[in-house]
Amino acid sequence: MSRPRNLVVAQSGGPTPVINSSLRGVIEAARDLDQIGTVYGARHGIEGVLKEELLDLSAQSPDEVALLRYTPSAGSIGTCRYKLKDGQDEDFERVIEVFKAHDIGYFLYNGGNDSMDTANKIALLAQKRGLDLVGVGVPKTIDNDVGDSEFKLIDHTPGYGSTAKYWMHAVQNANEENMGSCPADPVLVLQAMGRKIGFIPAAARLADPAREMPLQIYLAESPCSLEQLADNVNDQLRQNGRCVVVISEGFDVGSLGEVKDSFGHTSFGSSQITVGQTVVNYLNKVGLATKGAARGNVSGTDQRHSIAYASCVDLDEAYRSGQKAAELAANGESGFMSTILRDPGMIYNVRYDKVPLPDVANSERTFPAEWITESGYDVTHEFVRYARPLIGEEMPSLPMLDGRQRLARFEPIFAEKKLPEYELQADRK
Amino acid sequence: MSRPRNLVVAQSGGPTPVINSSLRGVIEAARDLDQIGTVYGARHGIEGVLKEELLDLSAQSPDEVALLRYTPSAGSIGTCRYKLKDGQDEDFERVIEVFKAHDIGYFLYNGGNDSMDTANKIALLAQKRGLDLVGVGVPKTIDNDVGDSEFKLIDHTPGYGSTAKYWMHAVQNANEENMGSCPADPVLVLQAMGRKIGFIPAAARLADPAREMPLQIYLAESPCSLEQLADNVNDQLRQNGRCVVVISEGFDVGSLGEVKDSFGHTSFGSSQITVGQTVVNYLNKVGLATKGAARGNVSGTDQRHSIAYASCVDLDEAYRSGQKAAELAANGESGFMSTILRDPGMIYNVRYDKVPLPDVANSERTFPAEWITESGYDVTHEFVRYARPLIGEEMPSLPMLDGRQRLARFEPIFAEKKLPEYELQADRK
Repeated sequence: MSRPRNLVVAQSGGPTPVINSSLRGVIEAARDLDQIGTVYGARHGIEGVLKEELLDLSAQSPDEVALLRYTPSAGSIGTCRYKLKDGQDEDFERVIEVFKAHDIGYFLYNGGNDSMDTANKIALLAQKRGLDLVGVGVPKTIDNDVGDSEFKLIDHTPGYGSTAKYWMHAVQNANEENMGSCPADPVLVLQAMGRKIGFIPAAARLADPAREMPLQIYLAESPCSLEQLADNVNDQLRQNGRCVVVISEGFDVGSLGEVKDSFGHTSFGSSQITVGQTVVNYLNKVGLATKGAARGNVSGTDQRHSIAYASCVDLDEAYRSGQKAAELAANGESGFMSTILRDPGMIYNVRYDKVPLPDVANSERTFPAEWITESGYDVTHEFVRYARPLIGEEMPSLPMLDGRQRLARFEPIFAEKKLPEYELQADRK
Repeated sequence: MSRPRNLVVAQSGGPTPVINSSLRGVIEAARDLDQIGTVYGARHGIEGVLKEELLDLSAQSPDEVALLRYTPSAGSIGTCRYKLKDGQDEDFERVIEVFKAHDIGYFLYNGGNDSMDTANKIALLAQKRGLDLVGVGVPKTIDNDVGDSEFKLIDHTPGYGSTAKYWMHAVQNANEENMGSCPADPVLVLQAMGRKIGFIPAAARLADPAREMPLQIYLAESPCSLEQLADNVNDQLRQNGRCVVVISEGFDVGSLGEVKDSFGHTSFGSSQITVGQTVVNYLNKVGLATKGAARGNVSGTDQRHSIAYASCVDLDEAYRSGQKAAELAANGESGFMSTILRDPGMIYNVRYDKVPLPDVANSERTFPAEWITESGYDVTHEFVRYARPLIGEEMPSLPMLDGRQRLARFEPIFAEKKLPEYELQADRK
């Protein structure tokens, strides 16, 4: 067997409650894989590679690594929205230079479709430059928008199950609020993440599979005018005296004063007015069918870092996707993403497998049109059947210390810098 | 001993994660108090009394009553924002009439200062009208704004500890988000409830008593210009590259297109633009000291119905405040509120006592000025010392069933109506 070579793992894009579970899977798997030497975490994703900021994860306490399970978001090694674009040759060359300097034989990139493209390009360029580098992807998004629409490349992404569970709780509790407060506040509008793809708002239905709540779910894929939306809400008010509305941040309600990120995606978190607020204002302007006012919650990043609501199924699957990626790397399977494939039939079961990075990079998942009900503002039982197993049964048991969450804390042990400083080529946003 | 007479319990104003624990305390205590017959819950507070909608709580399954511990907000019997104002004599007379019709000897009103005033007025009027009615208050608010500023009438209100714990978690997790995402999103603005009083945003400090986070806390009591706020944030960015801002919904940032509720309070949940959004927009307009954009979360009612984050201390204290109120009622102690008083000294311990309703109604709590730091955007360790015991040590263990929270569900068993229908005198908003 050849000598062990080092591994760099990096995170990209928006974090999830379980992104650190994948990281833990990589670190712990690498301990048992002789082909892998030191595991480095790139500080803030590819930016950390460019700046040669490589956190030594093999040198961290095993307890802190295990605590990654209960540590949401990307604070431990950091993520970024820096995109290595075609034409930014200097950036690409710098990545190879850094990898050579630190004897990196394995590069694991944890992200969405864009990141799979980047991981693949880096692996290919490395070969050209005479560096034997294995590039492997690790799937991640709360949006569940990685892979294809037929769920063949990946059934669901780590992160989605936990955000789906967040929405199950949010809507159960918001329904109690709305039920209790309806004489004064008959309409409660909750804005969900997910840009153009409706998997997150759809998860609201998991709070009420039996359809007992006055719940309306608006996906970006099923647009209607504000006027129509207000009519729907008022119909519900006349019927039930109250209404809970879950709406996608990407639902088309006219101009929001949008801000774009470096991927060209709208950064809804930075918009001048939110979809939720626009809907609340419209409803209060045209007036409700019952007395009282509409009010709204825009929980924002809370839905991607509320570890108390994480799905134990998702936590486990994220971990195993990370393990699988490390295993693929050690086996020299460059150009693949570790993936989660669901067995057919009634019994929920998955296997961890690999799919080619270019297939993932060139695919675009959409929310199945047949899972949107005829009314346009709800999802079908087929969606519930798909998503229900992903949220599991139990609440995770968070370790608490002195009244606070005990979060993973790494020592600042970095690889020694061996190259001159480097200036990033692209803007981050 | 005289024959048992019936009890009406009603909720008023904004709900809390533990408001149902107080309700449970009343129901379960009444089982052991021979003076009390049937316990009725007024459907949607005083509105339910006026409309003679009295839910029979004594007829409910003991398991469902016990589940009130894990059922947030006021969905079980309902709250309202209907205020019995002086001059609405018809409403007051109707309340007495309904109480007479159902042999009500005890009226327990769960709310804030306004509700304590109403409870007292109803008890006094009842005496005048020849109805022997014991009126007792049960304290409640997430804002901790009941009672006096010296904490002599009440140390803290049930509900506050849980919302404080919510903010401890929210800021711990948001800090992970901000730490991980800072190259692209260096500023995360979180809007907290609490109108004019800063106990809720102040609780953000519980996430970081050692002051290791780049955290700024803006209370309505310590106003500054948006320009000054942006300067503070940019100073923090220059120092740490990131900043988490927690700001009160009532912080003065100019016009918000406000909506008032029936108490004359601003209903921030229905404003046309939120304080959080205004701050995000301003920061993005003037520009940040580092690259990237500001983004914001307005979690809204989530902070008052996230039962997963409830404080076990608060759950217990809310329950016991309810028990105490039932005990006061049974003992004929009309015109009092059950209260929580803290023992002096280092050891956290409370006793359940009574204070006169008019004292509570006529008091107005303020956030102690000496607990705001010199910078104006933080709170002192004295605040932490006050609030730390209220959030407890453990997470509550939520009962889950089929992947969802198992919430209390009452049967619709109502007292038979004995009076003609009645039209409410006041608007709800």
